[in-house]
Amino acid sequence: MNQNIARLLVTCADQAGIVQAVSGFLYHHGANIISLDQHTTEAYGGKYFMRVEFHVEYLADKKQTLLDTFAKNVADKYQMSWRLSCSFDVKKMGILVSKEDHALLELLWRYSRGALPCQITKVVSNHEDLRADVESFGIPFVHIPVGKDNKDEVCDKIDEVMQGNDLLVLARYMQILTPSFVDKWESKVINIHHSFLPAFVGANPYKQAFDKGVKLIGATAHYVTSELDEGPIIEQDVERVSHAFDVAELRELGRDIEREVLSRAVRWYLEDRIILDGNKTVVFD
Amino acid sequence: MNQNIARLLVTCADQAGIVQAVSGFLYHHGANIISLDQHTTEAYGGKYFMRVEFHVEYLADKKQTLLDTFAKNVADKYQMSWRLSCSFDVKKMGILVSKEDHALLELLWRYSRGALPCQITKVVSNHEDLRADVESFGIPFVHIPVGKDNKDEVCDKIDEVMQGNDLLVLARYMQILTPSFVDKWESKVINIHHSFLPAFVGANPYKQAFDKGVKLIGATAHYVTSELDEGPIIEQDVERVSHAFDVAELRELGRDIEREVLSRAVRWYLEDRIILDGNKTVVFD
Amino acid sequence: MNQNIARLLVTCADQAGIVQAVSGFLYHHGANIISLDQHTTEAYGGKYFMRVEFHVEYLADKKQTLLDTFAKNVADKYQMSWRLSCSFDVKKMGILVSKEDHALLELLWRYSRGALPCQITKVVSNHEDLRADVESFGIPFVHIPVGKDNKDEVCDKIDEVMQGNDLLVLARYMQILTPSFVDKWESKVINIHHSFLPAFVGANPYKQAFDKGVKLIGATAHYVTSELDEGPIIEQDVERVSHAFDVAELRELGRDIEREVLSRAVRWYLEDRIILDGNKTVVFD
Amino acid sequence: MNQNIARLLVTCADQAGIVQAVSGFLYHHGANIISLDQHTTEAYGGKYFMRVEFHVEYLADKKQTLLDTFAKNVADKYQMSWRLSCSFDVKKMGILVSKEDHALLELLWRYSRGALPCQITKVVSNHEDLRADVESFGIPFVHIPVGKDNKDEVCDKIDEVMQGNDLLVLARYMQILTPSFVDKWESKVINIHHSFLPAFVGANPYKQAFDKGVKLIGATAHYVTSELDEGPIIEQDVERVSHAFDVAELRELGRDIEREVLSRAVRWYLEDRIILDGNKTVVFD
Repeated sequence: MNQNIARLLVTCADQAGIVQAVSGFLYHHGANIISLDQHTTEAYGGKYFMRVEFHVEYLADKKQTLLDTFAKNVADKYQMSWRLSCSFDVKKMGILVSKEDHALLELLWRYSRGALPCQITKVVSNHEDLRADVESFGIPFVHIPVGKDNKDEVCDKIDEVMQGNDLLVLARYMQILTPSFVDKWESKVINIHHSFLPAFVGANPYKQAFDKGVKLIGATAHYVTSELDEGPIIEQDVERVSHAFDVAELRELGRDIEREVLSRAVRWYLEDRIILDGNKTVVFD
Repeated sequence: MNQNIARLLVTCADQAGIVQAVSGFLYHHGANIISLDQHTTEAYGGKYFMRVEFHVEYLADKKQTLLDTFAKNVADKYQMSWRLSCSFDVKKMGILVSKEDHALLELLWRYSRGALPCQITKVVSNHEDLRADVESFGIPFVHIPVGKDNKDEVCDKIDEVMQGNDLLVLARYMQILTPSFVDKWESKVINIHHSFLPAFVGANPYKQAFDKGVKLIGATAHYVTSELDEGPIIEQDVERVSHAFDVAELRELGRDIEREVLSRAVRWYLEDRIILDGNKTVVFD
Repeated sequence: MNQNIARLLVTCADQAGIVQAVSGFLYHHGANIISLDQHTTEAYGGKYFMRVEFHVEYLADKKQTLLDTFAKNVADKYQMSWRLSCSFDVKKMGILVSKEDHALLELLWRYSRGALPCQITKVVSNHEDLRADVESFGIPFVHIPVGKDNKDEVCDKIDEVMQGNDLLVLARYMQILTPSFVDKWESKVINIHHSFLPAFVGANPYKQAFDKGVKLIGATAHYVTSELDEGPIIEQDVERVSHAFDVAELRELGRDIEREVLSRAVRWYLEDRIILDGNKTVVFD
Repeated sequence: MNQNIARLLVTCADQAGIVQAVSGFLYHHGANIISLDQHTTEAYGGKYFMRVEFHVEYLADKKQTLLDTFAKNVADKYQMSWRLSCSFDVKKMGILVSKEDHALLELLWRYSRGALPCQITKVVSNHEDLRADVESFGIPFVHIPVGKDNKDEVCDKIDEVMQGNDLLVLARYMQILTPSFVDKWESKVINIHHSFLPAFVGANPYKQAFDKGVKLIGATAHYVTSELDEGPIIEQDVERVSHAFDVAELRELGRDIEREVLSRAVRWYLEDRIILDGNKTVVFD
């Protein structure tokens, strides 16, 4: 991975001159723009979103200058909320899982072949089942059991264990997180839901899909908010099914969709491709 | 179209010997099985569904004998509900539409090139807009205006105009049909809904999809029942979208999905590929 | 359609400062960038491609100034090949067709509902079959019969009839165009080929696909060059098939793919989304 | 896995009475038909293919009787080539691999969760790289190095090591097998090819796809014959790509397609869903 790649993510009110201001700033600092994506929510007067990926020699040395100068010369003027992400600052990621291994193993396999630009620091589970799988990748496994009345305690423990991570991924973690935990980790927790949301919220979506007789089943990767299954959607996909599928077969096929959808969402997060727009996402893929 | 093709559709309790009984019956009457599909809802003790397509010389002459003998020798024994459909009995189809032409024109175009094995008898609309389009295909167009308080009257009129049809297709007919009409035409009315049901029931699904920020939009062809948007699903499909699509663009892309999904559902109906299983469908495609 | 939208397409050697130069130029002329896409063929030292869509008040009045100033102040400096396309200059499009109507009708239907931003000026065919269909859309139909030895004459006639068009679309025109015609209309003729090129070049691709037993069939929209079926690919798609499809069914399903693929390619051309890169295309969709 | 499930696969000339004969035979032996699929290559006088899956109590005890009686009473009469496969006879599968792990690991993972009904007996590789991965699944790993001039010797060794297997899977085994080996293992070796065959036969298909500028890339699972890349196709799939993908990215995306396509083909083989029809396959999925 080239150490001199940076990404600038910008949100502000739509107005003339933004591209010129940002590209001028980058040119002035010797940067070469690799890609530039933008999105406006309305033809006039909407919100503006931008992602610029650029290359600049000696990025590590220049980072602080870039941050300071951009804030002063560009961001303040256009009242931007923004962040700069540098390839040498490898993101840290923790994973939570219960007993099902498919989403976890897909992430670990992609990670081990270098396809997820991050460091996976820890896997937490409320069961011991997947310890050997996780440890075989050289990643610490932490068992935090969940009882009837210890949700707060469990979430405090997870919060403590996961300190320092940029992202938490719920790879089929079948426990509800407390509102205070979710608030603390706002916009930093991605979940994979085993349905095409907003259809089939709640428990056992494959059973719901079977009962309804849908002809496609899906999965949704979304940010976790305090409203269950209602956080901003990052990615979704579906596969065709027929009357011949029983619930177990829907679930088995669904696992393949979950693996792919979650992998894409996590990769996009790590590549700084996602910007929040209220309860929706802008994904520059 | 070969005039000597028939299709037998069977529903009964699952039990041993059904295939043997049906294929023996057909063999005895000189028929050649072209395809045979079956489905059981449980490993044991469930419901059984079968579709057999067969060829037999002089079908028109033999039809009554086949009906009588099958009823007596096979259907009664296995307590089947069943029907026999012959290729020379061309199905009659009526279409209802409002102002949007895309779903209607797709059906008319496929019909005109022989890809829908039926006779389209009439198109009814609550607006005059599409008269010329319909009449250019040589199909009668009937304008039945809808007012504030004449739903019953309108539905009586439609019922009268559509007498003799085997199937009614709502190709974006934006009026609600009365329960008594729906009961009369039970399992004979197919609607195209512009969302991936059960997500986004009700009005303006593309606006709902936009507000929710989904990454796929879809369409659903379903039988019409008295519960709005809740009838048995026949076919569904989706296309990928992004944050960059506004509501108008979602709607435009959605139209393409609607055209395809409705066409497939109608063709399957005409080819006797759909059997009802409570609030679900078995589709032997 | 907003009359004040323009698109600038640029190709040059990759080098620092291009975005800054172009966006600075646009800002200076009061333009608001709607979207900006770029592509480089190599990390360093490759080719650079850019598409910028922008809005500017009084575009018609400013067009000549924009052209002159951009040439002098930007394009020369960076040795760009480039073009500016304005929304008020509606593109003119001619269609060539033989007997099959599916690709033609799809284009005419989309055109009639405003989904193809162009003026369709003429449809030329070597058969009379589709005259009524074309004329019902109010578009002139020209019959240019093809004989055994009059290819040159036919192409001269087509060239004459089609003068003034920006784009010619071969919507299943089953005649070979002469090299001199193709040269004259270089990068201005789009063909729909009924296979997933480069598989199944040449005659009867559905028969070839059937014989080979492929599990997907496809269609390809490409620019026409003097090498048959070898021009730059613009768009492709496929559908799943099985052993149960005979050649006629492959052809029927294939028609649906052809309709979609050609429609997309034509729309992208009209929206100035395609730039040639040797024998390949850059498509900013 | 239910031990009393059997599958009967039949190929013969199309003729009246086959379904009746087979279903009558099964009924007489107390079997319950779970599914029945058939295919004929022509409306009349073609080849006929059938797959029947059935349940019968005490299958192990009855197997020899079923084989003998079916041969005498049905197969001889209709001149069928056929085979009976019983769920208690677990198929044995060997895998060959070189250095790339993606196709292998996908198979091993699915195997470990019970989604591939077989016993994986051995993995053979011409490199040592994947030994630890394979052995962690408890499967013997055999290293058979390949030199310049020892192809015959290598294939003899593989043949010896793999004795007793019903299926060999080339999960990115990058060596050519000798014609005599291929003959010996006819219809028992499945390969995954990293292109949408018949496009891009031969070396480095992703480079070929890149150079050609295709908009979709694919993968093909096929039987291995002595003609390289020309064996009967079992399964294919594609994904959409754009000008923005370089060769490495095409390869990375291609790996995901290869994993899925090969998994499906292997599962279908193990479930007796594939029948050869000359150089094509009938797949009853």
